[in-house]
Amino acid sequence: MKTTIAERLCALRNEMAQAGIYATIVPQADPHMSEYLAAHWQARRWLSGFTGSAGDLVVTADKAYLWTDSRYFLQAAQQLAGTDIELMKDGLPGTPSIDDFLAASVPSGKTVGINGMMFSTMRAGSLRAKLNIHGIELATGFDPIDRIWADRPALPDAKIFIHDAKYAGLETSKKISDIISTLPSQQASSMFVSALDEIAWTLNIRSNDVTYNPVATAFLYIAPDNGSVLFIDPAKLTDETTAYLASQGIKTMTYTAVMTFLADLPADAKVLIEPNRTAEAVDTALAGRSVHGTSPIAEMKACKNAVQIAGIKAAMQRDGVALVHSFMEIERRVAAEDGISELDIADILRRNRSAQPLFFDESFGTIAGYAAHGAIVHYEANETSSSPLHSKGLLLVDSGAQYLDGTTDITRTIALGEPTADERRDFTLVMKGHIAMAKMIFPEGTNGAQIDVIARRFLWENGLSYLHGTGHGVGHFLNVHEGPQKVALNLSKFPFKPGMLTSNEPGLYRTDVHGIRCENLVLCVEAMTTEFGKFYGFETVTLFPFDLRLFDTAIMTDDEIEWVNNYHTHVRETLSPSLDGGALKWLTDKTRTLKR
Amino acid sequence: MKTTIAERLCALRNEMAQAGIYATIVPQADPHMSEYLAAHWQARRWLSGFTGSAGDLVVTADKAYLWTDSRYFLQAAQQLAGTDIELMKDGLPGTPSIDDFLAASVPSGKTVGINGMMFSTMRAGSLRAKLNIHGIELATGFDPIDRIWADRPALPDAKIFIHDAKYAGLETSKKISDIISTLPSQQASSMFVSALDEIAWTLNIRSNDVTYNPVATAFLYIAPDNGSVLFIDPAKLTDETTAYLASQGIKTMTYTAVMTFLADLPADAKVLIEPNRTAEAVDTALAGRSVHGTSPIAEMKACKNAVQIAGIKAAMQRDGVALVHSFMEIERRVAAEDGISELDIADILRRNRSAQPLFFDESFGTIAGYAAHGAIVHYEANETSSSPLHSKGLLLVDSGAQYLDGTTDITRTIALGEPTADERRDFTLVMKGHIAMAKMIFPEGTNGAQIDVIARRFLWENGLSYLHGTGHGVGHFLNVHEGPQKVALNLSKFPFKPGMLTSNEPGLYRTDVHGIRCENLVLCVEAMTTEFGKFYGFETVTLFPFDLRLFDTAIMTDDEIEWVNNYHTHVRETLSPSLDGGALKWLTDKTRTLKR
Repeated sequence: MKTTIAERLCALRNEMAQAGIYATIVPQADPHMSEYLAAHWQARRWLSGFTGSAGDLVVTADKAYLWTDSRYFLQAAQQLAGTDIELMKDGLPGTPSIDDFLAASVPSGKTVGINGMMFSTMRAGSLRAKLNIHGIELATGFDPIDRIWADRPALPDAKIFIHDAKYAGLETSKKISDIISTLPSQQASSMFVSALDEIAWTLNIRSNDVTYNPVATAFLYIAPDNGSVLFIDPAKLTDETTAYLASQGIKTMTYTAVMTFLADLPADAKVLIEPNRTAEAVDTALAGRSVHGTSPIAEMKACKNAVQIAGIKAAMQRDGVALVHSFMEIERRVAAEDGISELDIADILRRNRSAQPLFFDESFGTIAGYAAHGAIVHYEANETSSSPLHSKGLLLVDSGAQYLDGTTDITRTIALGEPTADERRDFTLVMKGHIAMAKMIFPEGTNGAQIDVIARRFLWENGLSYLHGTGHGVGHFLNVHEGPQKVALNLSKFPFKPGMLTSNEPGLYRTDVHGIRCENLVLCVEAMTTEFGKFYGFETVTLFPFDLRLFDTAIMTDDEIEWVNNYHTHVRETLSPSLDGGALKWLTDKTRTLKR
Repeated sequence: MKTTIAERLCALRNEMAQAGIYATIVPQADPHMSEYLAAHWQARRWLSGFTGSAGDLVVTADKAYLWTDSRYFLQAAQQLAGTDIELMKDGLPGTPSIDDFLAASVPSGKTVGINGMMFSTMRAGSLRAKLNIHGIELATGFDPIDRIWADRPALPDAKIFIHDAKYAGLETSKKISDIISTLPSQQASSMFVSALDEIAWTLNIRSNDVTYNPVATAFLYIAPDNGSVLFIDPAKLTDETTAYLASQGIKTMTYTAVMTFLADLPADAKVLIEPNRTAEAVDTALAGRSVHGTSPIAEMKACKNAVQIAGIKAAMQRDGVALVHSFMEIERRVAAEDGISELDIADILRRNRSAQPLFFDESFGTIAGYAAHGAIVHYEANETSSSPLHSKGLLLVDSGAQYLDGTTDITRTIALGEPTADERRDFTLVMKGHIAMAKMIFPEGTNGAQIDVIARRFLWENGLSYLHGTGHGVGHFLNVHEGPQKVALNLSKFPFKPGMLTSNEPGLYRTDVHGIRCENLVLCVEAMTTEFGKFYGFETVTLFPFDLRLFDTAIMTDDEIEWVNNYHTHVRETLSPSLDGGALKWLTDKTRTLKR
C-alpha cells in the first residue's frame, strides 16, 4: 500500500516535470464545487491514501503535504504513516494556509500548476494574486490525473429520473422562465450553473451520482428563447427523460462538450456565474463574457412552495414513525445489554426508514456517538471505534433520510440510564437555546447571524459554547446542506424568507465526557404584520420527542416547559394515527407532560 | 436671503464654468471626516441655506439638488423654499444615490469636480469607478469655496491644552511607540492620522474647535526615530504646549504644510492610512506610498485603561448628582405647571452639570422630546417647536457631558403623570432588552452584531422594532461617538474587548404618540474563563434611576426585577454620599424596591 502511494506520487511528479510545474495542489473537489464527491473525483484520496472527507494534497518535486482539519488529525496521521506525505494540521496557529505556504516556499519564477476545473474562480483568483506578488506563476490547465490513474472510476452513469411536479410543486419550464426574468437585474443575459443541486432543482430531475445527494452530474446553461442546454453523459438519459427535457425546452449535449460550447458563445454574451460555485476553467472559457454575481436559483430553491411544504410535513410524519420504531428498539436492546453498538444504530435507522413509503436513501451518514464519542462533532463509528452501548451515559444520534417528498435531518441526545445532574443541566442549557430559536420572532430582513446568538446565550451565560453553526438550509429531496441562508455567527447576507427550511441544532461538547445536540428542522413562516413591518418566525416540522428524563425544570421558565409540552402533544397527535400497540404506548409515555 | 443663495450658487457656477466642471458635490464634511464640523467647513450650509447636520449639495450649470435623510425632510423643505435647490429625499425608494444620479445625468465626456480634501479616499474611489464606466471624469482638485465665500470663518484657532496623564493614564511617548510597533503587521513603516479624536487621544491634547467634541484641528504623521510631526495652526500653540509636544518627541509644522510634506516623503515610504477616514487628496499626495489598512489607534483608544476607568466612574458619580438635581427640578416644575418647556430641560441639565468639578462642556446637544416629539429620533427642540410640559405623557431626555476625567451619555424616559398601561408596557419591553444586554455574557471574539439582537428580541416578539443601533462606542473626554466597536444589526468586524465603553440604548418610537429610549453606558469586562475560553460581560457605569412607575412587573421575570433593584441600590449607595436633604430623600424614593 505505502509503496503504491510512492509510485502514484512518482507518476504525478513525472507529469509535473514534463509540464514544468514546480508544485501542484490536488484538492478534495469536483468541477461542481460539491460537498460530497463521486468516486471519479477522489484523486486526492487515491494519491495520498487518506480517506477523510476534507483535505487537500500539495506535491512538489521532493515533498508532499496533506492539509486537513482537526476532525481528521488522528486518522490522517495513521493513514499517512509510511508515506513521505507530511501532515499539515489546518487551523492550528502554526500552520500556514496552502496559499501562504506556496507563496513562501515556491521560488520566484517557478510555476504552480492546478486543474482549473477543481478550483472555484474565486479561489483561483485569490491564489493567483498571492502567488504573483511573489513572482510565482499559476497555471490552471494542469490535469494529469486521467493519465496516471489507470483504473480511475468512470464518471457516474446512473440514469436520471423525473422528480414529479406533484412533489416539486413547480414545472421546470416555469422555473426556467423565472430564472431568466431575474438576469437583467445582474446585467446578464444568460446563466451557467455548475452546482448539481441547483441543476436538479431547476430541471426537476434527480439521480444517484453522489452518496446521500440525489443529484446528477451535469452542467446547465440557461438562456432565453429555448436556448437552455443540459450537458450530461448520454448514458444517463433514457427516451423518457430526453423527451421530458425537450418538453420543458431543454436541449441536451454531452457532458464533455461544455467547454467548447462556452468558448463558442457569441462575443457579446453576458453569462452570469456564481464565482464561489463555478470552476476557474469555466470562467477562463468564457473569456471576459462572465458576469460574477449571485445565483437566483439558490434563493428560489431555498423558499419551499406549498406543495413542497406539504410533502415535507408528510415525510416528517413517516420519518417520525420510523424513529419511534428505531429508538424503541435501541432502548430495548440497551436495556437487554445485548452488545448493541454505535454501528448498529445506523443499521436500525436505515431498516426502519427504508420500510416507509417514498424512502429513497439516507440524507447523510448516521452519526451515533456514545458518551465521549458524542463530543467528537463529526464522529462516524467504524469497525474499530464502535463502542458497545450500556445503561448509562448519553447517546447522540444525528441522522436523516431522503424521501421523494422531502429530506429529513434530526439529532436526538438520549440518556441510556438514569442521567446525572450534570448531564441534565448540560442538556437543558442546550434545549433552552433550541426552544428560544424555535419561538423566535424577527422582522423581515433578519439574517442568520442575528438569529444564531439567541440559541447560544444560555450556554454563554454559563461559560459554555459550541463551535459549529446553529443551523443550515435543507433541500427538498436534495442535499441536506444547502444555502443561501444559514444560522451561524459569521455574517450572512441572505435574510430569512418564508418557506426556507433550516436546522435548529445547538449543541455542547465536553471533551472525553459527552456530546449533546438537539436538532429539529424549522420552516420560516410569517408571524405578523404591524406598523413596524412584517415579522417572521419558525414552525418546527420535525416530529419526535426529546428525552424527558434529561430536562432540569429547575432552570427552565414556564414558557420553556410549555413549549416542550406543546411540541410533544403535537408529535403525539401527528404520529399516533400511524402507530399501535407497544409503539403507541411507547410514544404516549415519551410525550407525557413535563412537570416541575 | 433667497437672493443670497442664488448669488452664492451663481458664484459657484462661474467657478465651475472656468474650471470646465459640469457638476460638483459640496458635501457636509471636513478634511478629517468629522461627525461635527467647525464653522470654517460649513460650505454646504452657506451655499444652500439648509442648516441640518447631514446633507450634501449637488450643483450643475442650471440645477441644484440637496440630498438629506428623513430627519430633515421637513426642515430642508422649509429652508430650501424660494431657492432653485431641489430636495432629494435620501432613503426613499425612488431617490437615487448621488453617485448613481451623477452617473446617469452627467453626459459622457464631461467632468464632475470635487474637493478631494472633503471626500474619503474610499468614497472618492467608488464615485470615480461609477462615473468612469459611464465615460465621465472625476476631477478631485476643484476647491472654489475660499474664493467665493468672502466672509468664510477662519480655521479654528482655540489653544490646545494638555490632557494630563493623571486622567489619560498613558504618556504620549508610550502611545506613539505602541502605535509604531503595530505598523509592520500592516506592511507599513509610518502612519498618517486625519481623525481628530485619534490625534487628540494619541497626543493627550484637547481643544475646543468643534462643538461638543474637545478636539484640535490638525493632522498627525507618526514615524519611528522621532519622525512624528503634528500639523497645526501655530496660533493654537503656546510655549507650554510646544514644549510638551517636543518632550514627547513630536515636531510641529503648520497645518497647511501637510500636503507638501506628504508629497516630499521618500519614494520607499509606506504610510498607513485608513481609507474611510482619510481624504482622497491625502492619498493622491502620497502617490502610491499609502498602505490602506486599519488604524491601530482606534482600538487602543477604545480600550480604556485603569486610570481612565477610574475617571469614568468618578465622572459618572458627579453626573449622577447633577442628574438628580436636574430631574428633581423638572419634576417639581412640571407638577407646578409653570410653563416649563422642552428647551428648558437642556438649560437645567447644563446648569447642574456645569456646577460639577471637572466639567468642560456638554457632549452633544440635549434631546428633550415630550410625547409625540419623543418619537422623532433626532429631535432637537427649537424656539418654534418647543412644547410646554404637562402632568401626563412621556418625556425622553438624552444628554451628556464632557468632564476632564470622562464623557457621559444617558437617556431616561420618564412619566410626567400617571402612566397608562400602554406606556408601561412599551417602556418595560424596551427595558427588558436593556437589561438583557446589561447582563449578557459572551465569548471572546463576539462582535456587536451578535449582541444587538439580545436587546431587540422582546420588542420583536411583540411586532415592535427600532431602526437605530443599540450601542455606540464612547470616548474618554473625547467624542461621544467613537469606534471601532458598535452594537448594531450590521456586521461589525471589531470584537468587544475589555475596557471598551459603549452605550446600551434600545428604544421604541410610536409615531405621533411617544418615544422611549433607555440608555446607560457599559464597560466591557472579563466575566470568566472556562475550558471553552474567555467570556466577557458588561459593567453598567451610568448612575441614575429608571422611572419605577413605568415598569410593568407582570411581564418581567424575577431576574429582571432583581437587576433593577440591584442597579438602583448601587445608584443610591454611590450617589448618596454627595446628596443631602431633599435630594437625598428624592433619590431614596426613586430607588425604592420594585415589587410585583
